Amino acid sequence: MTFKVDLNCDMGESFGAYQLGNDAEILDFVTSANIACGFHAGDPATMRKTVALALKKNVGIGAHPGLQDLVGFGRRNMAISPQEAYDLTVYQIGALSGFVQAEGGRLQHVKAHGALYNMAAKDAALSEAIAEAVYKVNPELILFGLSGSELMKAGEKIGLRTANEVFSDRTYQQDGTLTPRTQPNALITDPDTAISQVIRMVQENKVHTVQNQDIAIKAETICIHGDGITALEFAAAISKSLKEAEIEIAKVEEFM
Amino acid sequence: MTFKVDLNCDMGESFGAYQLGNDAEILDFVTSANIACGFHAGDPATMRKTVALALKKNVGIGAHPGLQDLVGFGRRNMAISPQEAYDLTVYQIGALSGFVQAEGGRLQHVKAHGALYNMAAKDAALSEAIAEAVYKVNPELILFGLSGSELMKAGEKIGLRTANEVFSDRTYQQDGTLTPRTQPNALITDPDTAISQVIRMVQENKVHTVQNQDIAIKAETICIHGDGITALEFAAAISKSLKEAEIEIAKVEEFM
Amino acid sequence: MTFKVDLNCDMGESFGAYQLGNDAEILDFVTSANIACGFHAGDPATMRKTVALALKKNVGIGAHPGLQDLVGFGRRNMAISPQEAYDLTVYQIGALSGFVQAEGGRLQHVKAHGALYNMAAKDAALSEAIAEAVYKVNPELILFGLSGSELMKAGEKIGLRTANEVFSDRTYQQDGTLTPRTQPNALITDPDTAISQVIRMVQENKVHTVQNQDIAIKAETICIHGDGITALEFAAAISKSLKEAEIEIAKVEEFM
Amino acid sequence: MTFKVDLNCDMGESFGAYQLGNDAEILDFVTSANIACGFHAGDPATMRKTVALALKKNVGIGAHPGLQDLVGFGRRNMAISPQEAYDLTVYQIGALSGFVQAEGGRLQHVKAHGALYNMAAKDAALSEAIAEAVYKVNPELILFGLSGSELMKAGEKIGLRTANEVFSDRTYQQDGTLTPRTQPNALITDPDTAISQVIRMVQENKVHTVQNQDIAIKAETICIHGDGITALEFAAAISKSLKEAEIEIAKVEEFM
Repeated sequence: MTFKVDLNCDMGESFGAYQLGNDAEILDFVTSANIACGFHAGDPATMRKTVALALKKNVGIGAHPGLQDLVGFGRRNMAISPQEAYDLTVYQIGALSGFVQAEGGRLQHVKAHGALYNMAAKDAALSEAIAEAVYKVNPELILFGLSGSELMKAGEKIGLRTANEVFSDRTYQQDGTLTPRTQPNALITDPDTAISQVIRMVQENKVHTVQNQDIAIKAETICIHGDGITALEFAAAISKSLKEAEIEIAKVEEFM
Repeated sequence: MTFKVDLNCDMGESFGAYQLGNDAEILDFVTSANIACGFHAGDPATMRKTVALALKKNVGIGAHPGLQDLVGFGRRNMAISPQEAYDLTVYQIGALSGFVQAEGGRLQHVKAHGALYNMAAKDAALSEAIAEAVYKVNPELILFGLSGSELMKAGEKIGLRTANEVFSDRTYQQDGTLTPRTQPNALITDPDTAISQVIRMVQENKVHTVQNQDIAIKAETICIHGDGITALEFAAAISKSLKEAEIEIAKVEEFM
Repeated sequence: MTFKVDLNCDMGESFGAYQLGNDAEILDFVTSANIACGFHAGDPATMRKTVALALKKNVGIGAHPGLQDLVGFGRRNMAISPQEAYDLTVYQIGALSGFVQAEGGRLQHVKAHGALYNMAAKDAALSEAIAEAVYKVNPELILFGLSGSELMKAGEKIGLRTANEVFSDRTYQQDGTLTPRTQPNALITDPDTAISQVIRMVQENKVHTVQNQDIAIKAETICIHGDGITALEFAAAISKSLKEAEIEIAKVEEFM
Repeated sequence: MTFKVDLNCDMGESFGAYQLGNDAEILDFVTSANIACGFHAGDPATMRKTVALALKKNVGIGAHPGLQDLVGFGRRNMAISPQEAYDLTVYQIGALSGFVQAEGGRLQHVKAHGALYNMAAKDAALSEAIAEAVYKVNPELILFGLSGSELMKAGEKIGLRTANEVFSDRTYQQDGTLTPRTQPNALITDPDTAISQVIRMVQENKVHTVQNQDIAIKAETICIHGDGITALEFAAAISKSLKEAEIEIAKVEEFM
């Protein structure tokens, strides 16, 4: 039996005169790109360039809608209604789709960004609104979300293909949620531990929690962080280790 | 022989708590709606509602991209490059298309807004960028622009269907341009004169200029202003007069 | 003994082409104006005009800082840090002060807007940050806040003069907080009941709660809503009733 | 006789998650800092930090108002009215002043940014509006502008102290304007030539134009660019050369 997994990374986060990330380099390692759509980061020029680059490198293109909070990079929770979540998701998927069509490509997936992602993970109503937005724009799109989260449930319920996402560098709680960053053991800083956790999630569908027990987890796509000094090195390392473990790295649409 | 003409109006210009225009009422008179896309006016919720309303009333839906100048309502010229014009047009067509797809409709046309419209009318490079943006997102879209302008030429050149737009309440110069608003005789304030001018443009393809001569003009779509106290009255009057002159009012896609 | 109270109202909420409120008319009834500073509403031109108008009518001028959420009108809670609350308060007080200085006036007070006001009322850390921002820009400024709230405590603690604000058209809970708008009995819709509640708060420092008991409450400034069809009528009615009850309406700086 | 000159640099141009410039290092070489105010760059947190840093290093603090064009970094000309120029200048000076007051400092000067600076240089009406804005907020402020430009004339006319700015790395035309960047000889890329030009402008009030003649020029403050890889090196080199030429580097308010 062959295991397959997708590697995804946020990109297209530059804005005007401001440069962020190493998109061109990271694209050599990942199979899916979550491209910012101008609300929390990104601008039309950056979106065009990033879409073109992803197409050239045969990476699956995803819309990465976020809260309308540029100065906060979409990382601050906002009390938006489900209707507002629906509207901002439709708008941003549409905006990115404009560039995807203009470049002759096809949109593969949608992944919510930052606070929108985190709020939706726990909130069924927000999740249903986001899933409905994706479905109504295009029912062929694949919805990314935290493995086992409300967003994944909402996506399945409405009839979307879903890609359960896992994190290599975060620890897990007994209920399958990520340990909050405010806790000291939230991050896995040792690359080998991070890689081992990911390989086990893919091969065995299990993760060892901070409560010291195994729980079941689906791992269809792995989140790689694109910023930070060591992002490229880590992307290369995880890519290499997955291949050594005979796990095939492929964009989600190829194995779903 | 039957004459046909389209009536178009800007709408979806509300923003957050701010209401603008009489969209629901105006939609009873026009055949094409130019819906703001969030740069100069409009927001995701307004776009969704306006698209739904236009579909319900069987009005042709157009994206109405503008400069990113919300406080200036997209009316202030900006020194943008052709590449920037291309990018903001693709983005905004895409964003509106998201809502059109979600509501099960189809986008009919694109009309640039305010300063973008006026700058493009005289600037071949900007016009080519906008026309290319429209064409690359979807070559089936119809491009609206000032009758005889650079934008119409650029649209034809790239292979788009174009709808030459005329104004009932503006006077014309010998070269086919509108008399600038800074001049005292720019506006036609008498409704009967305005309506006569429009009917003649449709039936005879001629307009009488301020230099007191007739020039040729194409009139495929007529711009109706949606704001102002008398907007609805004027829309009703022009609609009635066109019908009395046996000019059929139909959305552009029906006769192009 | 003479009772004195201030009447305040939000204004300067127009933005670009969008008009909101009846500032000129409302200014005839109120003694303090909370002027939006461009984050949740308002723009530089509106700020200039509103400051000039308030000065002309001898109304106390206040900065009305809000969350950076124009499309949400600053009404949606956001998870901002105390540092962020400090920064946005300093920025917005400063911006409005620019116009106050240019017009030859003097800033009287600061009142947080919408979600910022509500979040601060219950959150000591946010309140301390806002109070510190006000104090550091100018320790002579008067801080407005929900009567008895964390913001009033923070203001007193740092050494600011505070103006405890009451609402005529909202019911109160036993702990002095407003009944949330999500509950059916949140609003007082009968004008006479509203006015009686206010007069009693001013004269007796008491309010009757929805739990059917009296509690103590300080009433130094009364919030008048400036939008809505009946805003002007209500402003006139409350103004008239206060005078009949021999309560002097005066700007806070005159009796603090 | 001792020559004195000010060295100024744009800073505080970071925004949210986006970092730009080497403010802390550049502040060791310059005597005046032009701090972005949130319209073309900068945000409240960045403004607070930059003001605090400038005060700590005893550098003169200036407001650096720009056009409201974040994605274009305030570099794209916009057709704003004089009234709009006035309003955005008052707003941004005020906003920065908030932080200056909160940190216990004093605002020294105002320098318009990018397109606003360039448009004002040639446009008397825009210049008068900007000068009036500065004067009305605080007549003690020093107005920076292109040496000999309309802005300097407007500043003198209204009664402001003005600081005529020269560029070390740009060539000059016979009429005292900078050679447009679109021309091949616009930039001086040789550091020695750049430094010689500046020293001569300070000591002899002369500059050699591209038309190969000397013209008179006032040099009260020299613009140093803060971004680019060699910015720090060049700042150090020009600082060293000026000292060797016995030109004292001091903030403008010390010698005006």
